[in-house]
Amino acid sequence: MKIAIYPGTFDPITNGHLDILERAIKLFDKVIITVARNSAKNPMFTEEERLDMIRTAVRRYKKVEVDSFTGLVVDYARRKKATAIVRGLRAISDFEYEMQMALMNRNLNDEVETVFLMPNEKYTYLNSSIVREIAIHKGNVKNFVPPNVYRKLKQKTSSQ
Amino acid sequence: MKIAIYPGTFDPITNGHLDILERAIKLFDKVIITVARNSAKNPMFTEEERLDMIRTAVRRYKKVEVDSFTGLVVDYARRKKATAIVRGLRAISDFEYEMQMALMNRNLNDEVETVFLMPNEKYTYLNSSIVREIAIHKGNVKNFVPPNVYRKLKQKTSSQ
Amino acid sequence: MKIAIYPGTFDPITNGHLDILERAIKLFDKVIITVARNSAKNPMFTEEERLDMIRTAVRRYKKVEVDSFTGLVVDYARRKKATAIVRGLRAISDFEYEMQMALMNRNLNDEVETVFLMPNEKYTYLNSSIVREIAIHKGNVKNFVPPNVYRKLKQKTSSQ
Amino acid sequence: MKIAIYPGTFDPITNGHLDILERAIKLFDKVIITVARNSAKNPMFTEEERLDMIRTAVRRYKKVEVDSFTGLVVDYARRKKATAIVRGLRAISDFEYEMQMALMNRNLNDEVETVFLMPNEKYTYLNSSIVREIAIHKGNVKNFVPPNVYRKLKQKTSSQ
Amino acid sequence: MKIAIYPGTFDPITNGHLDILERAIKLFDKVIITVARNSAKNPMFTEEERLDMIRTAVRRYKKVEVDSFTGLVVDYARRKKATAIVRGLRAISDFEYEMQMALMNRNLNDEVETVFLMPNEKYTYLNSSIVREIAIHKGNVKNFVPPNVYRKLKQKTSSQ
Amino acid sequence: MKIAIYPGTFDPITNGHLDILERAIKLFDKVIITVARNSAKNPMFTEEERLDMIRTAVRRYKKVEVDSFTGLVVDYARRKKATAIVRGLRAISDFEYEMQMALMNRNLNDEVETVFLMPNEKYTYLNSSIVREIAIHKGNVKNFVPPNVYRKLKQKTSSQ
Repeated sequence: MKIAIYPGTFDPITNGHLDILERAIKLFDKVIITVARNSAKNPMFTEEERLDMIRTAVRRYKKVEVDSFTGLVVDYARRKKATAIVRGLRAISDFEYEMQMALMNRNLNDEVETVFLMPNEKYTYLNSSIVREIAIHKGNVKNFVPPNVYRKLKQKTSSQ
Repeated sequence: MKIAIYPGTFDPITNGHLDILERAIKLFDKVIITVARNSAKNPMFTEEERLDMIRTAVRRYKKVEVDSFTGLVVDYARRKKATAIVRGLRAISDFEYEMQMALMNRNLNDEVETVFLMPNEKYTYLNSSIVREIAIHKGNVKNFVPPNVYRKLKQKTSSQ
Repeated sequence: MKIAIYPGTFDPITNGHLDILERAIKLFDKVIITVARNSAKNPMFTEEERLDMIRTAVRRYKKVEVDSFTGLVVDYARRKKATAIVRGLRAISDFEYEMQMALMNRNLNDEVETVFLMPNEKYTYLNSSIVREIAIHKGNVKNFVPPNVYRKLKQKTSSQ
Repeated sequence: MKIAIYPGTFDPITNGHLDILERAIKLFDKVIITVARNSAKNPMFTEEERLDMIRTAVRRYKKVEVDSFTGLVVDYARRKKATAIVRGLRAISDFEYEMQMALMNRNLNDEVETVFLMPNEKYTYLNSSIVREIAIHKGNVKNFVPPNVYRKLKQKTSSQ
Repeated sequence: MKIAIYPGTFDPITNGHLDILERAIKLFDKVIITVARNSAKNPMFTEEERLDMIRTAVRRYKKVEVDSFTGLVVDYARRKKATAIVRGLRAISDFEYEMQMALMNRNLNDEVETVFLMPNEKYTYLNSSIVREIAIHKGNVKNFVPPNVYRKLKQKTSSQ
Repeated sequence: MKIAIYPGTFDPITNGHLDILERAIKLFDKVIITVARNSAKNPMFTEEERLDMIRTAVRRYKKVEVDSFTGLVVDYARRKKATAIVRGLRAISDFEYEMQMALMNRNLNDEVETVFLMPNEKYTYLNSSIVREIAIHKGNVKNFVPPNVYRKLKQKTSSQ
């Protein structure tokens, strides 16, 4: 069984993340989407909130597991018997950072391969920090996140 | 009448900003240079100081209005009946960030077009944070900013 | 009256070109879309065929003129009393080449400003040479070009 | 069974190609390395020579099939029941071209996913055209290509 | 005598830094490796610790001097009678930032030339912040830093 | 004595090349500017014409030798006892190609270091092919090339 992990901060999960997840599902027998604990400096959502939003958003997919981890991602991959780390590539700036991470991870554990997938081009400009920014300024993020995340974001930002 | 807005942090305004502004003036009937409030984490200059420096620096241009705004830039553009957001493009790193912003802004309001202009190549390396950095280290920034900003920077950094 | 020129090889014109043209129309009083003669090494379509396809494709737009030119684009702009050269920016590779051209053109004539517009992100991957490539391999290019260009491409490639 | 294709010109196959192939083997049940016929303008090696060199170089791998194709790569993938197109990503310039190809291919057939893998960093600078260039100038390419390709290159270039 | 300075934060010095230093030594009569004081926001190591680690790591090189500085790097270069500032270039993101710095430094003092050297490709992915990150997560950084830095990092992170 | 070579096609030599040459002169005891024979597909100028133009243009510099070579640049460097290959870096696209070449050259001969210098930013957009293009279209290239090259270009293009 080919297992892949899809690690990230997911603060919050966006439709771009779900797009990558769906592509990974077609390629692997199991995909573990996993929240990197403590990776965000000042997260908008707690780890538990982020996990909750992911669980609801991915409920409709089979073969997907939701988890969180701390420490090095390659150690986590080894514990999960994963052969691949899935990452989305949207832009050049992604590319450089991701290449650096992939090479370093390979140096630390060369049995896990980083696999890059490209999201639908309509998600080129989409990332969690832009979504948070727009939500804070009361802009409409309905098209960018799953419905449950949309409701959660409205709740969070209306109380500010 | 074609109206463009030129939004930024302008902490402080540099000769590179003025170069872009002059190019925008040739293309539009009115250009509103507008300070994004709260956009800088720890600005060197207060919003009022930044507006003052801009007002003095652009006094010689006709067709230019100075303003500030908060919230989403596309909402501000709509209120001002602007059809264009002007942005300077100097380098690849600018390009990626600006493309992301432009696409997101279009998604939020597709009636405002982002227009990219290229500054004189002598301003390729110039940005406000480098100017602040040099000024703090008592380097000479006379060639990089308008005279009134130069005086203000000297004042600010000599008292440190 | 603000006049812009939109120069290119247009071998053939694609929906990405039309997307940029529509954005330029909103910003200027007149836009001249103009075929750079002799710019393509081995064009698939003759200059006359390219002009014909453009004329049909842009018929529905007001304020648009179709033309062709030879020589330096800045000299052509001057003759047409244009204040702007419109260019689409889709990717980093575009950016470098376009920046180089824009700076060189400004050096040759600093009264014409190059204005960069961003196409809809669904056209990020679209250019004339990919369209030709797919058409030659009998792939379906219906979504990438105007209907009249689609018919012309089928005709051209079926006879090969 | 998960099948991937690894298309390319392979004029000639290098150690960088083999590095990517080995990574793909770990991720898929079968990998078809396939020569794009007529893709090179003036190939150094004929299609048959390139296929021969690949066959010898990949003999030691199980789960690998060697083939060639003409026409669109997505049509070929469909015929082979492949769910993935494997591509190596070494540099930014690769990235832009590959992203464009991947998005266009997805538009033509959204059931095949392009999967990007990163070669060992020692192959960052390696590509077939540099290998040909060095071989023509009698430089030593022993470290860059499999032994059978090395012999073939020496033979080819000594007769010039 | 041709003198070069090699400025940086060195928090801590890595094998990638030593690789660049060795290349610089071949080109110049004296190389001063110099710690930019106060350049790091929240350094892991104090200035004195960083200098100590560098001193031990470079002990085997002749023609190398270890120092630290504050203020503008070009002013420091002038005081040291250096004709060159040495910088390593690993990636595109380095390139843009370094180009900006080099051009600004030239503007402030055009008698000092910035000289870019390329590290061994095995150090492409290596920088001090990744080393710190891995060390904090108890990953093995033995291959990335000199032995004395490795010991110091273990000490520092085991007490956390 | 530190010797550097500055290889290129120089079809023709531009002010940007001279700018890099002058910077190299400050860093090395001797700089050999050397024409790569047969490197250009369809050069505008013959090897002899290119060498003539360089000889006239660099007459005012001491410590400069003019030469040409064929074969691998690292073999040429070895014959000339050079420790450095000088290259200008103007843009990202330069960077990727130059990095690839530098790494390959180092692999072929690790005793020669590639040294990257940055030209004055006013030459960012300047290269020989743009100069040829403008000259062919009767544009004014006076600011881009040395006087003797300007005369030669006029001569060459007026007869066409």
